[in-house]
Amino acid sequence: MSLVQQMVEAHPRPAAFDTARLVACIEACFTCAQTCASCSDACLGESEVMVACVRRCADCSDVCVATGRILSRQTEFEPAVARAIVQACRAACEACAAECERHAHHHEHCRICAGACRECERACADVLEALG
Amino acid sequence: MSLVQQMVEAHPRPAAFDTARLVACIEACFTCAQTCASCSDACLGESEVMVACVRRCADCSDVCVATGRILSRQTEFEPAVARAIVQACRAACEACAAECERHAHHHEHCRICAGACRECERACADVLEALG
Amino acid sequence: MSLVQQMVEAHPRPAAFDTARLVACIEACFTCAQTCASCSDACLGESEVMVACVRRCADCSDVCVATGRILSRQTEFEPAVARAIVQACRAACEACAAECERHAHHHEHCRICAGACRECERACADVLEALG
Amino acid sequence: MSLVQQMVEAHPRPAAFDTARLVACIEACFTCAQTCASCSDACLGESEVMVACVRRCADCSDVCVATGRILSRQTEFEPAVARAIVQACRAACEACAAECERHAHHHEHCRICAGACRECERACADVLEALG
Repeated sequence: MSLVQQMVEAHPRPAAFDTARLVACIEACFTCAQTCASCSDACLGESEVMVACVRRCADCSDVCVATGRILSRQTEFEPAVARAIVQACRAACEACAAECERHAHHHEHCRICAGACRECERACADVLEALG
Repeated sequence: MSLVQQMVEAHPRPAAFDTARLVACIEACFTCAQTCASCSDACLGESEVMVACVRRCADCSDVCVATGRILSRQTEFEPAVARAIVQACRAACEACAAECERHAHHHEHCRICAGACRECERACADVLEALG
Repeated sequence: MSLVQQMVEAHPRPAAFDTARLVACIEACFTCAQTCASCSDACLGESEVMVACVRRCADCSDVCVATGRILSRQTEFEPAVARAIVQACRAACEACAAECERHAHHHEHCRICAGACRECERACADVLEALG
Repeated sequence: MSLVQQMVEAHPRPAAFDTARLVACIEACFTCAQTCASCSDACLGESEVMVACVRRCADCSDVCVATGRILSRQTEFEPAVARAIVQACRAACEACAAECERHAHHHEHCRICAGACRECERACADVLEALG
């Protein structure tokens, strides 16, 4: 059982929706926040800077941090805020994955980052389905 | 002319939409990020903790930081991501303002914070209109 | 091999110091950022709010996010900034762990969070040793 | 009276040290967080990307957000954590200002950003003096 799942289950207030989807999305958000921070910087460090990728990854890392934290909170859950930030996270992950995929065959960091973004995008879609 | 406006105009890439609305929203996001961080903690420090307010303000501060940063970026602007995060910011500000307003006549920090949230909510609505 | 390690190794610029310590600290920072965001909210959701714990965890989550991101960047590494933020992270983790440990036998979320903080504190100490 | 000052004074717990220095530092942190987010992206959007400046500004924005939030909290204040994060903020501002100043005569965004960093660096030094 992952630390995230342990924390969700140890919380005095129950998860507001399906625990498995909540846990998967929190994990994907923090993983993607790291991967995007790293990929943004790696794209900046290449001999030919990949400008769009630096930007898309920076945005995605910012949204993932906010989303991961908000979903980690189970006290006084507010569906409208959760839905809106998860939608933003899905959009940021989609845009970042699309850009990283264009460079995935040349740059391993883009390939890995695109994968993390797609996983987070899917996890967000699953949460949105659960939120109704 | 505010520092935010100076930075927007000094940027090598033009603003993607109406500069006045962009500047107003960036300023409102950073102001609201601070006000909410402070109000969340003030509600925690009251002799009777205001639980929902602590939570709502923490979420709002997180979303405002992400939104303020993303709008501050003018390189390789992506409307879909901007729209989604500004919608999330509007939702977080609306929810936080509604909660703070319930305590505004007893707690000055909630009154001030509600005002900052409403201003940011309006600034987000103006940006969404400009984004189409 | 973890995603963090894959990203560190796929980066066009080499890690500025021992890769194993760098990877361990980045992972610990993002894990602790999540655990502290969750524990802060869990302490708020208890029937008796644990005020100091909410505060200590909120600070620690903020510092861990900044530290995890800064260490994820390998382009134009600056030892003075890295050292200072890792020192701050160690201090925040130490203070948060000390507070959570006081409640660890009553609250599982505090027990888990204290563990994540102590691990991050150690990982920070290892990085500081490597940075010299 | 600024919003930050109003929030500091409306807080149920007194400021832990000289209010004027606390307010000035919180304001400088949020201003610098915005300026650095903008300058990092502006340096990325130039026809010749300024790599070190993108990096230095990204780090500085991250540290300023963490510091601005932590100083905004007055409940259960912990001097050791405050001191460490303000020291990190001073270091990040110093490094970012030094880099931006190298480009200040060619790029207005670097000139403005360097000024915001120097102001935040001074505000941090004043807080450290007050903290003892």
